[in-house]
Amino acid sequence: MYNNNFLKKKSLKISSLYPKKKFKNDCIIKNIKPLNSAEKNDLTFYDSNKYKESAFKSKGSFCITTKNLSKDLPSSMETIIVPNVLFELAKIAKKIYINAEIDYPDFTLKPAKKNTFKKVKFGKNVLIGKNVKIGKNTIIGANTIIEKNVIIGQDCIIGSGNILKNSYIGNRVVLQDDCKLGQKGFGFIPMKEKNIKFPHIGIVLIEDDVEIASGCTIDRGSIDDTCIGKNTYIDNQVHIAHNVKIGSNCMIAGQVGFAGSSKIGNNVSIGGQAGISGHLKIGNNVKIGGGSGVVKNIEDNQIVMGYPAESLRNFLKKNNE
Amino acid sequence: MYNNNFLKKKSLKISSLYPKKKFKNDCIIKNIKPLNSAEKNDLTFYDSNKYKESAFKSKGSFCITTKNLSKDLPSSMETIIVPNVLFELAKIAKKIYINAEIDYPDFTLKPAKKNTFKKVKFGKNVLIGKNVKIGKNTIIGANTIIEKNVIIGQDCIIGSGNILKNSYIGNRVVLQDDCKLGQKGFGFIPMKEKNIKFPHIGIVLIEDDVEIASGCTIDRGSIDDTCIGKNTYIDNQVHIAHNVKIGSNCMIAGQVGFAGSSKIGNNVSIGGQAGISGHLKIGNNVKIGGGSGVVKNIEDNQIVMGYPAESLRNFLKKNNE
Amino acid sequence: MYNNNFLKKKSLKISSLYPKKKFKNDCIIKNIKPLNSAEKNDLTFYDSNKYKESAFKSKGSFCITTKNLSKDLPSSMETIIVPNVLFELAKIAKKIYINAEIDYPDFTLKPAKKNTFKKVKFGKNVLIGKNVKIGKNTIIGANTIIEKNVIIGQDCIIGSGNILKNSYIGNRVVLQDDCKLGQKGFGFIPMKEKNIKFPHIGIVLIEDDVEIASGCTIDRGSIDDTCIGKNTYIDNQVHIAHNVKIGSNCMIAGQVGFAGSSKIGNNVSIGGQAGISGHLKIGNNVKIGGGSGVVKNIEDNQIVMGYPAESLRNFLKKNNE
Repeated sequence: MYNNNFLKKKSLKISSLYPKKKFKNDCIIKNIKPLNSAEKNDLTFYDSNKYKESAFKSKGSFCITTKNLSKDLPSSMETIIVPNVLFELAKIAKKIYINAEIDYPDFTLKPAKKNTFKKVKFGKNVLIGKNVKIGKNTIIGANTIIEKNVIIGQDCIIGSGNILKNSYIGNRVVLQDDCKLGQKGFGFIPMKEKNIKFPHIGIVLIEDDVEIASGCTIDRGSIDDTCIGKNTYIDNQVHIAHNVKIGSNCMIAGQVGFAGSSKIGNNVSIGGQAGISGHLKIGNNVKIGGGSGVVKNIEDNQIVMGYPAESLRNFLKKNNE
Repeated sequence: MYNNNFLKKKSLKISSLYPKKKFKNDCIIKNIKPLNSAEKNDLTFYDSNKYKESAFKSKGSFCITTKNLSKDLPSSMETIIVPNVLFELAKIAKKIYINAEIDYPDFTLKPAKKNTFKKVKFGKNVLIGKNVKIGKNTIIGANTIIEKNVIIGQDCIIGSGNILKNSYIGNRVVLQDDCKLGQKGFGFIPMKEKNIKFPHIGIVLIEDDVEIASGCTIDRGSIDDTCIGKNTYIDNQVHIAHNVKIGSNCMIAGQVGFAGSSKIGNNVSIGGQAGISGHLKIGNNVKIGGGSGVVKNIEDNQIVMGYPAESLRNFLKKNNE
Repeated sequence: MYNNNFLKKKSLKISSLYPKKKFKNDCIIKNIKPLNSAEKNDLTFYDSNKYKESAFKSKGSFCITTKNLSKDLPSSMETIIVPNVLFELAKIAKKIYINAEIDYPDFTLKPAKKNTFKKVKFGKNVLIGKNVKIGKNTIIGANTIIEKNVIIGQDCIIGSGNILKNSYIGNRVVLQDDCKLGQKGFGFIPMKEKNIKFPHIGIVLIEDDVEIASGCTIDRGSIDDTCIGKNTYIDNQVHIAHNVKIGSNCMIAGQVGFAGSSKIGNNVSIGGQAGISGHLKIGNNVKIGGGSGVVKNIEDNQIVMGYPAESLRNFLKKNNE
């Protein structure tokens, strides 16, 4: 639906990346995508049996994986067998996408001009990059930077001092002041002398009617996208790492932090300063108490609290002895 | 003392809002105020028996409340009985105050000019809104935005990249870089398709000799004000939600978070990353250890630590087994 | 190696500060330095027997201390005996260093001009202070402020909206958006009516190949420096207080907070939202779980988690009952 054409991409055939290997269906790689959203001619990757179910159903054409894991993949998929999947993935992603592993400042930025966008109002000193699209009746506050290719819907209120890149923002979204959206996430392969920076080719996708308060950071996805669902409200100083997906109608209080790749359901409320570990699945209608540290998946309709978070009942029992 | 004339207000008679109801003393509503600060001709609200004591003593003329709670109010007060107090309050506040539920960027902002303010020094690219007042010998750093109606005292040092709105700042206040003061708080009525944004008609009030470090967010009050007392020092990345009142001579370390409407006494010290839940009362001379999660009121002179916070003695006992 | 000539300094003889006292080797005070880095003609201070070992070996010429502690110092060192060491230190530091206790905005800032720095690229509205040095092939993003005397190495990527002061930054450093480096730390002597602000004469020192994400605050040292070691990566919204020293090859996840003066080894990884108390020593190769609250020193090669942090083994045992 939304495409990560935020980044420059080279058209490369899979055979040009692996010249020694024979491919049944050689073609230009359309995209690099996670298992569950990869389509025909996409390159995907499979690095942990946590994703076995997605592996089995994946529709991608090519997959970087290990010998051991490769047996879980559909037989039609062509595999690139390596000892270290993420290392290989980083290497290939850098060859296809230009400058995806460092946030180079956008030199296409220019002062916003009246009448460039229909019925859009700009505060003082707004900077706009190339190919930015902004819907009618949207208002942008002073000193805000909107980098190239960002798309903003109509009837949005974007406050002052925000920095937006690699982002797609829906309609009627309110963003208060000084937020950072679409920056590269905290992903790299640790090496003694010089870490290998992991390319981030995903975007930040904010759905309609979302409200985001001041001082938040929402990183773009690495291979996947980072998404905030419709009518979700986010308070000040919240940190949302790469690939996190938050459902609709959620309430996220101040200073909450999400580590990478967790998936939060709909109607979830999270109290202030709570932390959600990476790669978790939090169900629908879950309530997480302030200050909690969530380290396990949570089923639908649960109320949890504590560090590590447990059912509210257990938490109260322990703490009222 | 300080009035929330930061927001445009319509002069409306109580009878025009409730034409079917008969009022003994019909008049233009002066202000919407909480129970304890409401005066003659003010409209107030009473939504929980937690505030029974304030209800009984309130001097407001009109009160939105439920049938059940209305019996706690002075007999002289005229009541508007509704099933959902906050819902009704939001509706009426939006009719009286213009644009209080969204932070529309300030289009009165202009580049600060030498000599507009007596003995005030401005860094580069400072933007100043209409009716701003700044006292002598105050210095404002580069890229700072001071929106309309903000009042700043004398001998203040306001650093770079700050965004101030709906705020009243005393004398000799030091604000370091990149703080956000006076933004709308995280208050809304959750609705499935589209939440109802709660109007924020209060201000941020910073008393004399306060020091606030970098990257803090201090939201303005919803119906009440958010206040920081004299000689209180606040470290980096602290989040202070709407209606919080912090006393004088307090020390608040880095990344502490306050949920809405809590009241903190004088001489309180709070260690880094501690969180204070909403609607609490913390006494004078209280010490709260770093990382604590305070979920109950605390009496004067207590030392607490832990999550949930308990007496330091109990905390140490439990953790030294 | 790096000198704190970021601040204006008066050339004062030790005898001019203490005219009633006789000094064997009267001279101009070269610097105020902590015990372990003080050299000939430096003034140092010794306020707690925690630093006994450094006291014994210190090479400073003059030392502010108490009568009791003075016996731990080398006999060659000349002592200034006072009842309150930090109070006296603040007083003397203010006499030698100008404006070290308040971050006065830098009025030497000017819009960055092409060709002032060789092979350096600037985004829009960059402001640069006097005596700033920037190495070749470094790129600076829009709206960033680089205050006087800051030194930035070559091949760095400095994003947008950053505010840098009193900082020395190595080569190939990546700084994303909206970070605050080199501000005065949270140090003061509490007094009822008006706290005494503690002068901060140290700097922030960022070594080569460091990456710092968005919205971080790194305060400069008070008497010592704040240092980040080579190839260390720091995620969004991390707060690093004055005098903290972080080793090389560390990974610090989002919203982690460091209180003042702690020393972190090499190859340390710290999970999101963890907090490290002040004046601690964390060894090499330590892993600290997300959300942990570290209140004690940690030896090399330990894995800890919890609040207060304990060995992972104990943490799991307690929480799996």
